[in-house]
Formats: sequence, C-alpha cells, structure tokens
Amino acid sequence: MAGMTSPVLDFWFDFASTYSYPAAMRIGALAEGAGVRVRFRPFLLGPIFKAQGWTTSPFNLFPAKGRHMWRDLERLCAGLELPFRRPEPFPQSSLTAARVALTGLDHGWGEDFCRAVFQAEFGEGRRIDDTDTIADILSELQIEPEPALAATQSDEIKTRLRAQTTRAEELGLFGAPSFTTADGELFWGNDRLEQALKWAKTQMGQDQVGARVL
Amino acid sequence: MAGMTSPVLDFWFDFASTYSYPAAMRIGALAEGAGVRVRFRPFLLGPIFKAQGWTTSPFNLFPAKGRHMWRDLERLCAGLELPFRRPEPFPQSSLTAARVALTGLDHGWGEDFCRAVFQAEFGEGRRIDDTDTIADILSELQIEPEPALAATQSDEIKTRLRAQTTRAEELGLFGAPSFTTADGELFWGNDRLEQALKWAKTQMGQDQVGARVL
Repeated sequence: MAGMTSPVLDFWFDFASTYSYPAAMRIGALAEGAGVRVRFRPFLLGPIFKAQGWTTSPFNLFPAKGRHMWRDLERLCAGLELPFRRPEPFPQSSLTAARVALTGLDHGWGEDFCRAVFQAEFGEGRRIDDTDTIADILSELQIEPEPALAATQSDEIKTRLRAQTTRAEELGLFGAPSFTTADGELFWGNDRLEQALKWAKTQMGQDQVGARVL
Repeated sequence: MAGMTSPVLDFWFDFASTYSYPAAMRIGALAEGAGVRVRFRPFLLGPIFKAQGWTTSPFNLFPAKGRHMWRDLERLCAGLELPFRRPEPFPQSSLTAARVALTGLDHGWGEDFCRAVFQAEFGEGRRIDDTDTIADILSELQIEPEPALAATQSDEIKTRLRAQTTRAEELGLFGAPSFTTADGELFWGNDRLEQALKWAKTQMGQDQVGARVL
C-alpha cells in the first residue's frame, strides 16, 4: 500500500462507460507497480453529455463509432484476458451503482465494489441498473445490502455525487475513463492510463487539493 | 522492403487530422519491423463528418474534447520527439494535399510527400491549405510542382479521391487515422497502430481485395 506522501492519481469513471471497464480492472496492479496512490472518483457522464447536446451515449448517436467501439473493446478484453459480454441495453443507468460506490469508498470496500460492478456489467451481461443486481454484488462481497442501498436515497450521497460530477466538469472532463493529476493534467481514456501514472509519479508528495471534493 | 506476399495494412488518413500526424511519422519504421506492407490511403473526413451531422472538426464542436486533444497531442509529440506546433486555423482544407498525395503514391514519392505535409502543418505551423506551401514541399522533395498541382484539377484525380472517401465510409471509417486489414478488421486511432500491425501479420499472403479501390 502506498503511503500518504505517495503521488496521487484521480481515476474518474462512470459505470456505464465501456472503456472504464478495462481501466478499472487494470489500474490497481499498475498503480501499485508505479508507486502511485489512486483515488476512485465515480461520476455521472449523463449531465456532461447533455451539456454537449447528447441525450445518449455518443456510441449510440454515431453508429459507425459505436460498431468500432464494441469490436475494439472485444479485442482489448481478449488481449487482457478479461471476460467480455456486450450489455443490453446500453447504456444502463449508473446512478444507483455510483451512489453505492461513494458509500463503499468511505468504508474500505468501494474499489472491490467498483470492479465487481464493471465485471457484472461488461463481463457477465448483468443489469447494473437493477437494484437486485447491486444487492447481489454487495452480498457476494459480504457487504450487507440494505444500509448501502438505503444510503442511495439520502440527501448526503445524492449531493456528493452531484458535486463530484460538477467537479469533473470543472476539471475539463468530457468522457470516461479520465485521469487527473495534482498539477492539473487531464488524461482521457483507458489508453492513457500508463501515461497518467507516469505523469503522476513526477508529482511526488504534493497534495491534490484541486480534486478534493468529497 | 516487404515483398508481394507480405501481409498488408491499409493506413487511412486525412491531412487535417491531428492524430494522423504521429501515425504517419511512426508507421514506416514500425511496419518494417513487423514485416508488414503499408498502403497509404489519403481520404477526406469532411463528407464523413457531414454524414454524422458535423460541419467542422468534433474538436471544435466539443471544446472540452478539443482542449484535451491539443494537450494530449503536445504530450504525445514530446514523447516521440516530434516537433509540434498548433496549426492556425484548424482544421485546414486538405483537398489539394490529398489529391497531390494520390499522384505521388503512383510515382514513388507519395509517402515522403505525406510525411512532409504533416510535418509542415503540425511541426512547423505552415498553411497546407495554401497551394504555395504544397509547391514548396514538392520542391523540397525535388519534385516538379507544376504537373502535380495541375493534376489536382483533373477529373481522374478528383474522381479517385472521391472514390477513396466513399470506400473509407463503406469500410466503416468514422475518423482518422484508421487502419484496415485484409480480413475486414478496423482499427481507429494512432493508439491502435501497433495492434493493427500485429493483426495484419496474421493475414500473411492474402490479398486485400476489399480495400483495392485505386
């Protein structure tokens, strides 16, 4: 485990984001190898897409782009030996999962929960917009589902997720996954994970004040 | 030089496309190392963007995406030790350059010309939409400018560039750079160059009938 003076990288993702899946599955081992502390930052892409005039995923709005993405993701997962199954429907609401993740990140089980949600959605084709799926995932992680699900209806968690999304937009995010460093660099996409970690290493010991919203 | 039975990769690019610059500068050495024969396929993104409802580059339409792209390209070029200068205006018409490239690719100087155009535009900030710049580039390559520029007004070259653009769309292209293989795989983006070359190697000795439009 990296200590308090380790360099920090913020990992921004939406559970509905396809390329956030390989990023979430890869980031732990890569960050540990690089000696970088990662902070998981779930947010909602929906409001950011809406601000760009999009009412659904650009992969649905632009079919040629979408066709390539699904094939690319399939090739990518095969190369990483990650299970892959195209979720139906796509995208699915990530609201409940994101709110549960915030609670989990406060209590030490957030990162495992995030990986389990991505695996359920893109590895097994399960419906993450279904509260039952989220409850099952929590149970599989030995977490009592009821309190975490009840918290998704609290004003505190709702407000925090909105604030995190606002912060993402302020940092210039327009898609996911994205990575931000203490000195304000933004890296977009699973393909930039290694580069972002390398960059973060140069920020040794600095605090990431700008990204601290929670 | 790879022989006639080498695997083939088609490299699709638009001179106005930012990430086509590092791809064009990298592809020669990487392809030689991989034993893959590359075919340069200039085309026009404009008509393809128009079909998606875009009247200019998505990097202009979506400012946050554009801001990231310029910074990302700058970081990328620094890592590759490629000169970088943000072109003004952006995008510039790539029509004349693309037509000259088609002539050049028939006569053995096309790939050098393509690299020189990308370097002029993204390395030196020169205006590639200016016929004088294209003439200068040709002169620097010891190519007589007048015949190549005159050919840009011929029906034959105009028709061929249109056909190449139509073919790009048929192959599912929606952006540049893109790479296509004999077995119909499409790879989008400079980040996929290595993967595309690796894939092409598995197509040893097959002909790329589908992509042969010229």
